[in-house]
Parts: sequence; structure tokens; C-alpha cells
Amino acid sequence: MTDLRHKIMAVVENDLEEIEQALLENLKPQLELVSDVARHILFSGGKRLRPLLMVLSAKICGYTGDYDKTFSTAFEYLHTATLLHDDLVDGATLRRGKAVAHSKWGNSITVLVGDFLLARALSIAAGTGSVQVIKILSELTENMSQGEVHQLMRRGDIGLSESEYLEVITRKTAVLFQAACRVSAILASAPAEKEIALSDFGYNLGIAFQMADDLFDYTLDTDSFGKEVGADLREGKLTLPVIYALQQAESQDREQMIRIIKNKDFSLQEFEQLIELLKKYGGLAYTEAKAGGFINRAKEALSIFKRSQTKETLQNIADYVLVRRI
Amino acid sequence: MTDLRHKIMAVVENDLEEIEQALLENLKPQLELVSDVARHILFSGGKRLRPLLMVLSAKICGYTGDYDKTFSTAFEYLHTATLLHDDLVDGATLRRGKAVAHSKWGNSITVLVGDFLLARALSIAAGTGSVQVIKILSELTENMSQGEVHQLMRRGDIGLSESEYLEVITRKTAVLFQAACRVSAILASAPAEKEIALSDFGYNLGIAFQMADDLFDYTLDTDSFGKEVGADLREGKLTLPVIYALQQAESQDREQMIRIIKNKDFSLQEFEQLIELLKKYGGLAYTEAKAGGFINRAKEALSIFKRSQTKETLQNIADYVLVRRI
Repeated sequence: MTDLRHKIMAVVENDLEEIEQALLENLKPQLELVSDVARHILFSGGKRLRPLLMVLSAKICGYTGDYDKTFSTAFEYLHTATLLHDDLVDGATLRRGKAVAHSKWGNSITVLVGDFLLARALSIAAGTGSVQVIKILSELTENMSQGEVHQLMRRGDIGLSESEYLEVITRKTAVLFQAACRVSAILASAPAEKEIALSDFGYNLGIAFQMADDLFDYTLDTDSFGKEVGADLREGKLTLPVIYALQQAESQDREQMIRIIKNKDFSLQEFEQLIELLKKYGGLAYTEAKAGGFINRAKEALSIFKRSQTKETLQNIADYVLVRRI
Repeated sequence: MTDLRHKIMAVVENDLEEIEQALLENLKPQLELVSDVARHILFSGGKRLRPLLMVLSAKICGYTGDYDKTFSTAFEYLHTATLLHDDLVDGATLRRGKAVAHSKWGNSITVLVGDFLLARALSIAAGTGSVQVIKILSELTENMSQGEVHQLMRRGDIGLSESEYLEVITRKTAVLFQAACRVSAILASAPAEKEIALSDFGYNLGIAFQMADDLFDYTLDTDSFGKEVGADLREGKLTLPVIYALQQAESQDREQMIRIIKNKDFSLQEFEQLIELLKKYGGLAYTEAKAGGFINRAKEALSIFKRSQTKETLQNIADYVLVRRI
């Protein structure tokens, strides 16, 4: 597990440093406060997974320009914008182990700085000079906000099906991974089959990433997770571990689960009880297996690329998504 | 006054109908709720001033394509997105005489639907196929969010200067008017001098529009204004009528004004007292005169265009901005 992380880091260290530098340089708002709020969340230990995927995807397509690092920040800014707004929507208190922005600066500033980052991302996308790329990013943003609305609408609804869950996580998470990988191929003027392959890679990776995240909400402690464990449930978000277990549970256990889910002030004891039921009815194992399936599909999508260090790293990242902490 | 409105309407009636149609057609979110919230604010009697300016600016540049009406919706969606977020930021209760979206659907949905409209606007901009146009719109969005943050930072600060006020209204209002007029020239492949002229027209018109709006907050009653009169003051927004009067007032009157401004629960009587002081020290007259100056500059900017019905209508709209109700 740690080996995998070391292997990836050894290869991408320079890229990550350049991404970090670009994230700082491209954040040139005129107001200090905007910068402060944006930095609070931007430079608090994010993995830079989305920009890194974009940079590696460009590399595997033989991109030789110098806009990849700059452009990659668009995906981190967009991601950060949605974090700012989502934490607000969710009423979250912790993000990456730190107080969320809205508890520090208030809701208003948080909304507006999110808007700023969203617009900044699209300005940077415009810097590619490709209308197609810009269109993908703006449509992606539409999709993400709709995914969040969808999730919000179904809050606390125990009737949420696995397919609807999949639809929500596609929009709120997978489309961003997909776009980050796909647009690199466009940027590198790669042939259509490479664009499709990277698009598939990103989509499947994104789904697996979100499933893993939803799993960690039940399997990690708050310190290793950087968010409050059990937060999904407290926010009324039904995710795959619960959806599957509810489906499988015998009526008495099912009722007990629903009682805990419906009670937003569930105790630690009740939460542990729920986890036992998730285990009993295979909710955790099922989610892990499903996520594993998407990881495999992601790796298979790369089969059209010939063997290279970059390809191996993308595959390692895919594997890492399931075993990462945070 | 009513004559002016009739004159304008007689010319733009068809354009407005087509804009209205495009606003409906381009609002194609997948989720009904997103559509409901967006429609609540979009179809509640907005003047469509921004899209109309865009369409007329394209016309005066001899634009012959068929993307103008579609594209014009980007400016209304962008405007609407900022209204949704700003009403939330300001804690407003009424907009165009209707309950604001966040009091009906809650803050979360309002934030997300605002994000959706913002992204939709940029997708529509991408439909022009012009990277320059898209860049103008995304940079504009950055600017607007920063203008709002700036205003928020200076809430209740009686030291706000006229030049800082001008900076705030440039960003929060004028840049959108400016962009709506300017990009039409780009869309129509007009020569640079026309692009500059329309940019100047839009900028000056936007400043005058906001000054008039800030004036109406002290001169109109709630029914004609569609918003709560005195709302600016209640939200701690110091606008030109107050800034100027504070500057001119003798110390006792100045202290009285500050007392009222600092008291967010001022009574109607106190509000009327403040208005008297604004009149006494010329705050209202000064603002009206300033706005009039910007209107004149807007109209002068059109001097490079030869006489036409479109030019006359743009000039009439400029005059109308100061006398409009709502």
C-alpha cells in the first residue's frame, strides 16, 4: 500500500511540484480576502489527483506544449469551487482535517469565492484556445451542479436505488475525472481512440474513487479520513454500502437500520451497530468489489497505449484509489 | 417617460419575444427542480436589458448570423446566477416583488442552481466558437464575484470613498453591460473601433444603471421598486447618495446619519429622516447628476455609428435607464 504510493510519487514528484507552483501562480485575484479563502482550502493537503491525471494523460498522448501544468489547475480550482459550495450545502464542519471555509468566513464569502474559482477555471480553460475543451468544462460544471441538486433532493430517501446512486456519483464526481483525462488527448491532438480510451479511464476511475470515498465514511476513523466519519449518514446521504445492505437485510434488521438512518442525532453506539449490519449484509464488501470492478475497467481502458512509465503510473494511481487513506 | 418606453418597445418587441423564447429553450436542465428554481427568478418580470443590449449591439454592427438571440441568453443567465447568489449573500427577502428563491427552496438549492446557470451561460458562450468571447465572459464572472466580495468586505464602513464605490459597481454591474455590448462586435466581426465604442457604451450605461438603482433605493416605494426600499442601508451597503451626503454634512447631521446607518433596525421615521438629510446635502441630486453624466458619455460613445433606428433605440435605452421604474 505504502509501496504503491512511493512508486507513484517517485515518478510524479516533479509534476506535482510544478502543479503546486501553477496553482499558486494562477490564483491571482485582486482581493486578498478571495485569495485567503481560496488558499485555505486549496493548500490544505489536497492530493492534486485531478490535475495530476490531466498532466499524465497529456504525457501518455505525447503532448509537448507548455500549457499542461497551467491548464491542469482548472480541474483543481473547479474541484475546490464545488468543495466550497458543497460543504456549505452539506453543513459540513471539517474538510481535510481543517475547519471548513464557511465556518471561518461565513456563507456569503464562501459562495462568492466558489464562484470566483469556478470562473477562474473556465478562464484557464479558455487559455487552451480550444472551444471544444472549454465546452467540455462548462458542460461538466452544469452536470456537477445538477448532480449535487439530485443528491440533495434525495436526501434521507431510503428508496434510493443503486442505479440512481450511480447517476448521482457520475455527475458529482466521475465527469470531472473523465474530463480531466479526456481533454488532455484533445490538447495533445491525439487520435479519437486515445481520447475515448482516456475518457473511459477517467470515468471508471472517478466512479471507483467516489465509491471508495463512500466506503471510507464507514471504515476509517476521523483522523485518517480528514472528514467526520459518519458525515454522509448525518447529512442524509445514502451511499452504496447502505443501499445494498438495506436491500439485503431481513425485515427486523432493515427496520433497525432505517431507525438509525432516520435519526440524525444517532449515537456512536448506534453508528457502530449500523456498521455491523452493513458488514452482516455485505454492504461494505459489495461496495469494495464494485469499486474494484470499475478500477479494472479503468485499467483495461488503457490497453491501447503501449507500455511506458506513464501508463504504469496511471495504472498504479487506479489501484491506489482503493487503498488510499484520505 | 412612458413615451420613451413605448418608443423603445415598438422597435424591440420582436427581439424581446425571440429572447424570451430563447431563454426558455436554452434552459434545458435534466432536473425539474433546477428548472423550477431557475424559472422562478428568470420569468418574474426581468427587463431582459442585458440580452437586449447584446442583440441591438450586434445589429448595429451589421451582424447577420442566427446565434445572437441564443447567445444573448448567456447574459441573462449570468445575471440571474448572480442575483440568486447575491440575494443569499445579502439576506434579501424580495426580488421583483416575489419572495427570493432561497426563502422558498433553501440556501443549498439556491447556491447550486446559481452554479448551474453560471455554467450554462459559459456553455452558451462556447457555442459562439470564439475563444475571445468565452474569455471575456469567464473573466467577467471572476470580476463580478470579486466585486461582490469587495462590497461585502466594506459593509457598514462609513469610510467608503466615491472612488471605491465606483470600483465596486464597475465590477458588480458595469462589466456585464460592457461585455454584453462588446462581444456583439466580436460576434459580428466588426472593426476594432466599433468594438471599443460599444464597450464604452456598455460600461458607461452600466455605471449609470447601478447609480440609478442605488438612487431608487431612497426615492421609490417598495411597490414600484419590486425590492424593499431601504434594503441597501439595512444590508450595510453604502451607496453614492449616502457617501456624498456624509462627506458634505455638518458634524451634527453627519453624526445623526451615522447613527441611523449603524442601526440596522432603523425605524421608518429614521429612514425618512435620513432621506431628508440626503436631500439637504445634495446626495440624491449629486447621484442623479453623476448618473446623467455617465449616460451622456454612453450616448457619445455611439457617435461613430451612423444614424439608424437601432442607434436611436440604444440612445433611448440609455435615457430610459435613469427614468425607469424597476
